[in-house]
Amino acid sequence: MTFKIGLLGLGTVGSGTAEILLDPSGRHPLLQEIEIERVGVRSLSKPRTIKLPQEVMTTDLEAIVTDPEIDVVVELIGGLEPARSLILKAIAAGKHVVTANKAVIARYGDEIYTAANQAKVYVLLEAAVGGGIPVIEPLKQSLGANRIQRIIGIVNGTTNYILTQMSAAGTDFDRVLAEAQKLGYAEADPTTDVDGLDAADKITILTSLAFGRRLKVEDVHCEGIRQVSTADINYAQRLGFAIKLLAISQCPNKEEPEKLQVRVHPTLVSQDFPLASINGVYNAILIEGEPIGQVMFFGPGAGSGPTASAVVSDIMNIVGILKSSGKTETLDPLLSCSHQDYATVIPIEESVTRFYGRFLTKDIPGVIGHLGTCFGKYNVSLESVVQIGFIGDLAEIVVVTHDVREGNFRQAIEEISNLDAIDSIPSIIRVL
Amino acid sequence: MTFKIGLLGLGTVGSGTAEILLDPSGRHPLLQEIEIERVGVRSLSKPRTIKLPQEVMTTDLEAIVTDPEIDVVVELIGGLEPARSLILKAIAAGKHVVTANKAVIARYGDEIYTAANQAKVYVLLEAAVGGGIPVIEPLKQSLGANRIQRIIGIVNGTTNYILTQMSAAGTDFDRVLAEAQKLGYAEADPTTDVDGLDAADKITILTSLAFGRRLKVEDVHCEGIRQVSTADINYAQRLGFAIKLLAISQCPNKEEPEKLQVRVHPTLVSQDFPLASINGVYNAILIEGEPIGQVMFFGPGAGSGPTASAVVSDIMNIVGILKSSGKTETLDPLLSCSHQDYATVIPIEESVTRFYGRFLTKDIPGVIGHLGTCFGKYNVSLESVVQIGFIGDLAEIVVVTHDVREGNFRQAIEEISNLDAIDSIPSIIRVL
Repeated sequence: MTFKIGLLGLGTVGSGTAEILLDPSGRHPLLQEIEIERVGVRSLSKPRTIKLPQEVMTTDLEAIVTDPEIDVVVELIGGLEPARSLILKAIAAGKHVVTANKAVIARYGDEIYTAANQAKVYVLLEAAVGGGIPVIEPLKQSLGANRIQRIIGIVNGTTNYILTQMSAAGTDFDRVLAEAQKLGYAEADPTTDVDGLDAADKITILTSLAFGRRLKVEDVHCEGIRQVSTADINYAQRLGFAIKLLAISQCPNKEEPEKLQVRVHPTLVSQDFPLASINGVYNAILIEGEPIGQVMFFGPGAGSGPTASAVVSDIMNIVGILKSSGKTETLDPLLSCSHQDYATVIPIEESVTRFYGRFLTKDIPGVIGHLGTCFGKYNVSLESVVQIGFIGDLAEIVVVTHDVREGNFRQAIEEISNLDAIDSIPSIIRVL
Repeated sequence: MTFKIGLLGLGTVGSGTAEILLDPSGRHPLLQEIEIERVGVRSLSKPRTIKLPQEVMTTDLEAIVTDPEIDVVVELIGGLEPARSLILKAIAAGKHVVTANKAVIARYGDEIYTAANQAKVYVLLEAAVGGGIPVIEPLKQSLGANRIQRIIGIVNGTTNYILTQMSAAGTDFDRVLAEAQKLGYAEADPTTDVDGLDAADKITILTSLAFGRRLKVEDVHCEGIRQVSTADINYAQRLGFAIKLLAISQCPNKEEPEKLQVRVHPTLVSQDFPLASINGVYNAILIEGEPIGQVMFFGPGAGSGPTASAVVSDIMNIVGILKSSGKTETLDPLLSCSHQDYATVIPIEESVTRFYGRFLTKDIPGVIGHLGTCFGKYNVSLESVVQIGFIGDLAEIVVVTHDVREGNFRQAIEEISNLDAIDSIPSIIRVL
């Protein structure tokens, strides 16, 4: 039996996917039953490293998603449109869909999965989060027995590379970003990565799967790494922390399973926490549940080969099902996505976390007392207050709090910033 | 629809499994369609923490595996017999099987999977390796697009706990073992764990899945950790290494995919290698493949809750398939195990690895020359030779080699041990 694939897009991931499909020897034997039927691209004349017969290539993507010969449509063009429309048309034509498109799933997942469930087709997306790392499939198929409590991920390789380089070489953000752009680890317009938007898309998808509820990506609190300075990285190290851009999702109260905290921000992570030693462009996702405890998935979060590995594994999963059971009236509930209730994302002011704050102050003996009093007034209890040194005639003081309600901490900071003894507050970073 | 489970065994993992099945709220909704129909135990009168209706319990395990009401038989009694016979009878009766029994699968996997393929039933075993860590399922379902090159695992929590404690506290093996026994991390008879037999079973299973070939567990070269001393752990640390009991499986030559190196032994691991920082009873499995590169799965390698999480996930996977496609004539090739060719395990003398050796010698200036000459004669090239210090009037010298053929290294050691200047060779440990 041969199963036919329609590939939309032949960029980095598309080429990697085609390479695997065209060279099955030494891989799982099922690959030998999978064939590229059509490939849709924007331009037929663009020079390409991958060699495909001319009659396979087309610029008519709509024709692919409705082609009766095709079993699985693989969407690798990225972006919102025409990706969304093509996925919906493929579903309407009864095709199973594989996509690596986190943006479209994070925004239109509800529409896409509602359509897929009606049409009784699968929409798989392993490559959308963590590149090659198996995490979506394990979350759906291997962790369903658990009550998931928390997900903490380093899910953006670009920012993890930048923070790692800043930490290792003491180089400033702007210079490391420029280097990363030269090396191809960051885009010319780095906004999506460095401002945390890509991570927000990914934690939206993971949250929805882990907690069985839909949510809106706009509700995810999102801060990037532009404000992280090498000074903070150094002070964090001295205090036993690394700084990582974390995507975090948790259910703080199991009596209210619909209320979730979902956020992306730079975070101080204790050096003995599993995620602290994940460096460079690698990604890692830590999942906590009952009764499993902590499990972590680590690997390459991007790149042609790793991402294609995830795309092809999804294709193989669908083909494995088609081969064994053919078209059925009921989707496998572990592989489909049937939840419909929405989660309520808790406002960031209500979330509870620890904070690191760095203060430049004029008068040390008095100011520590003032800080303490002011924090105390808003129920912010302090774990440590350390005077790091002097910058000119200003003393540099670093504070780490215990768990506090974010709104209270912000109020305290507002009041502290108006104290006479305070020159400025160069940074506030959350602590895991 | 309700799917009915027959549980064989109500020990640690059996109780954990029953607990999850009896308390589905907050977990995946599919669990609500799974019911414990019968539980087979050795003694009905034994006091148990888990409460099950009396009519569910039986001592007649054979009646469970042939009960026409039961869809999935879950074998959690462990050991070889009657586990093997019960699994085979369950398969013959058309039941799908879930097992956590690495020993029975490592030894009788060929017989069991041949029977399962004939009867068109699944035999899933996520809990057999890595406790709660999803690794079997990801290997089968998420990494099939790759040519797997190497698997390196810390797959035995007991020995990893012992080595971690020896390293952290500088306490000798015997004392740490006694403590581990007191804490329940080691059995009264610790042979299976500390001599590497449990790890050998697990790497046999992983190898078979990763490389698509059957193999005999007796062919796996297996050394335990009894010979590892705190002295070696200290010297390894000074040289930038941790000592871990690793289970390693690799295909050294892709032109000969049937020839595999499969071995379990204490190993010096560079401190910046991902597995070096896996401590305590945790397990981690690193998989290398093309095009994915390195992925690692980390988590609790044992314990009632984590192992039960894996068992229940397997049950859910089978139920998901039954619900969507019912009984079919073709098994999903990703979930079944259809390979039949055997791998040839390369004799340990032919394997190529680095070595660490510690020598007690009488005469330092001369002896380093003698060591060098002798190693050179057998093509063993040295990376470093360090005189650590003195024990009485004997000098202690530590040698690390480059990659060498093990047979050559052994010949060199044989000759060196006969040198006049050599007092003794307290330890030889492989280096990753």
